[in-house]
Amino acid sequence: MHEFDADTAVGATGEGSLGGVISDRWSVADRPNGGYLMSMGVRALASALPHPDPLTVTGHYLRSPVPGPMTATVEAVRVGRTVSTAEARLFQNDREFLRVLGTFGDLRGAAGVTDVQVKPPGMPDIEDCIRAAPDGLMPDGTLISIMQRLDVRMAPDALGWLRGEPSERAEVCAWIRFRDGKEADLISLALIVDAVAPAVLSAGHRGSVPTIELTTHFRGHPAPGWLRLVTRTRALIDGYLDEEAEIWDSQDRLVAQGRQFARLAGAGEG
Amino acid sequence: MHEFDADTAVGATGEGSLGGVISDRWSVADRPNGGYLMSMGVRALASALPHPDPLTVTGHYLRSPVPGPMTATVEAVRVGRTVSTAEARLFQNDREFLRVLGTFGDLRGAAGVTDVQVKPPGMPDIEDCIRAAPDGLMPDGTLISIMQRLDVRMAPDALGWLRGEPSERAEVCAWIRFRDGKEADLISLALIVDAVAPAVLSAGHRGSVPTIELTTHFRGHPAPGWLRLVTRTRALIDGYLDEEAEIWDSQDRLVAQGRQFARLAGAGEG
Repeated sequence: MHEFDADTAVGATGEGSLGGVISDRWSVADRPNGGYLMSMGVRALASALPHPDPLTVTGHYLRSPVPGPMTATVEAVRVGRTVSTAEARLFQNDREFLRVLGTFGDLRGAAGVTDVQVKPPGMPDIEDCIRAAPDGLMPDGTLISIMQRLDVRMAPDALGWLRGEPSERAEVCAWIRFRDGKEADLISLALIVDAVAPAVLSAGHRGSVPTIELTTHFRGHPAPGWLRLVTRTRALIDGYLDEEAEIWDSQDRLVAQGRQFARLAGAGEG
Repeated sequence: MHEFDADTAVGATGEGSLGGVISDRWSVADRPNGGYLMSMGVRALASALPHPDPLTVTGHYLRSPVPGPMTATVEAVRVGRTVSTAEARLFQNDREFLRVLGTFGDLRGAAGVTDVQVKPPGMPDIEDCIRAAPDGLMPDGTLISIMQRLDVRMAPDALGWLRGEPSERAEVCAWIRFRDGKEADLISLALIVDAVAPAVLSAGHRGSVPTIELTTHFRGHPAPGWLRLVTRTRALIDGYLDEEAEIWDSQDRLVAQGRQFARLAGAGEG
């Protein structure tokens, strides 16, 4: 069993109640990554619905849990023929840390019109990119355990901020795959949309960037191979910011679109 | 009292329960507009939270209600110092038609860094735009009552599809304001992000476009005057599509960003 699948498993503990363990293998310093937590939320939703694929899932981050046991409740809100909707609440020590609302469907069974008006990102070849934190350590020694699970090759432009040479663009491009050989599946896109450092840091801003809300649209089952992730912040306004993400697969297909609302917190503010 | 404020009012009917009336003044044919319903959801959330301003609100559309009485329940999920989160469920005849999850804060009190990396849309002057459905009627005679409430001046490129001359771009640009003299406030942006015909129709696709999920980020209180709305679909894939929206105010400030996940339903499919 691959690490991601083991670490996002949630098992039924009763009617509409689930339990699992938040692993310490997907953290940034001591905080579990938001996309990792979302992946557990998506699994909770899936447990309550007949449709196989997440289409659109939103999570609101209420507090930051720590690695260790968690529980969840899940409710099927509406089960329809084409799509169905569920809500999940994720708890640690009886305190809710994430509420998730999502609609599922069947992407492989969808048979409507296709008209993709955007192109895959123009990115440097993998060998010209920089392997981010190959040992999982930031330059200051902070452990980013999620970087020990993911092989992330960053376009060099986006890494200038680590050398004190930020670009002016709040944009990150990266090649990504799991290190343990897992081929990305649909649900792992919930992790990957949020897997790299915030794009706003690339533009030279400093601080932590706690996610308030993250919505992912799941557009297709990814083909095997490297994924390409592009993230971009359009507007940092009075400390609040958006960050959009696109994930493209090895067949040049758009497989996920993320968008989050977050806050740039001052260095001392946490 | 302005029409929008009257028609989105929800009043407490008990602890955490609300009631209101879905007006027939914000419809497309016989269906109340999704942004209008979302505005009622945002008001329901506001009733449960101490913070004044919506920051990010997501709604999942479960079924289409009709004009007439509605009820809602609302729950404060977490009340924090900087932000607070609530959930609302909107019902008609005891059937839930919209579930809304949102986080509120205080935009006027926010004091962080600003770095806006996008520019207002390049749009034709108002006098060079086309007033959409000035009598609220589509060319085929269908009543779009929401167009009797909003003054919408469309950039001509986006209207070719009504003449059988679609552009290739799934993009719409429009100047918008309320017809009754109301100046747009923050909550009315929840309506306006979803107020014009789907951008995918501008690219020549045909059918109805039921919204599955809509998320709006509220970025600032709009200045008085005309708003500019730009909507764009990046990818229609097997009948599912995204549509993003930006709203800019008369002071060239980005005041809202919307994004929805929707389905292009065949003409006969409804």
